[in-house]
Amino acid sequence: METYPIAIGGITRHVPLIEPLPGRRIPLVEFLGDPELTRAAALALKPLVPSDTEILFTTETSPIPLTHVLAEALGLPYVVARRRRRPYMEDPIIQEVQTLTLGVGEVLWLDRRFAEKLLNQKVTLVSDVVASGETMKAMERMVVRAGGHVVGRIAAFRQGNPSLEVATVAELPVL
Amino acid sequence: METYPIAIGGITRHVPLIEPLPGRRIPLVEFLGDPELTRAAALALKPLVPSDTEILFTTETSPIPLTHVLAEALGLPYVVARRRRRPYMEDPIIQEVQTLTLGVGEVLWLDRRFAEKLLNQKVTLVSDVVASGETMKAMERMVVRAGGHVVGRIAAFRQGNPSLEVATVAELPVL
Repeated sequence: METYPIAIGGITRHVPLIEPLPGRRIPLVEFLGDPELTRAAALALKPLVPSDTEILFTTETSPIPLTHVLAEALGLPYVVARRRRRPYMEDPIIQEVQTLTLGVGEVLWLDRRFAEKLLNQKVTLVSDVVASGETMKAMERMVVRAGGHVVGRIAAFRQGNPSLEVATVAELPVL
Repeated sequence: METYPIAIGGITRHVPLIEPLPGRRIPLVEFLGDPELTRAAALALKPLVPSDTEILFTTETSPIPLTHVLAEALGLPYVVARRRRRPYMEDPIIQEVQTLTLGVGEVLWLDRRFAEKLLNQKVTLVSDVVASGETMKAMERMVVRAGGHVVGRIAAFRQGNPSLEVATVAELPVL
């Protein structure tokens, strides 16, 4: 399997190259299962979080450990938008998103209990990799619909040219 | 919304009661978004991990932060079985599971890259809540199919009577 070296916070990993669209190869960053890489990335992201942030907001699944470690380092709570409806959800906020990586439309779900945690809060959006920026746009719409205010957008890696401003630590190539 | 107090590692949370089946109410434990509760539970779980464990194995989504913090505290890697097929998966291990909480059959997916990390390894299975034990049985079958050896099964909370032996820290009622 062909790999590509990625580096963040002084840690390097040789990750697989995947081909989400024909002729378009990208390195597959994986924080899940890798506490050392996750902590290095979280500490590198920490200075990019606006100091007035009151809560972090991320999506299922791969950015969860990164956001968790970052939240704990900042002493902040966080909220996770799910990618499937869960049976216990009541009156969820439902938001469509188009993601380049998957090539298909996705839907984000946020239970009302968690949406309430964003109300009147200053929110920083967190992702592992920002590419088109469509997922982050959907997250921003969810925060607004929940009555919160987005004060920051951060991602560990930038890949290509996102359609909105996102503070990132490192760049991934599109090969 | 009716709540119920749960406690682990000296931390108490008042969590919602949900009714997954008519007449059967259970407290909904949520580690996602709660670094303090997650760390308390991870530290309480740490002594239950067999000392010869080489890698942890868990499932998407709610046990991920708990497993991540536990893995980092132990200096071990971990692997996450996914609940949806991801586009980049090659030759995944696919395992059916019946879960009581959801009332429907589920499927766990493990990409071959991650299955290889379990080969010839001593594996401890990690969950947030064990109820029927069906998810853990499916995880155990996946480890065996990946060529690993299960040396421990742990969960933060036990709910009811699991059909296999699992070391747990605290008990949740079925109301």
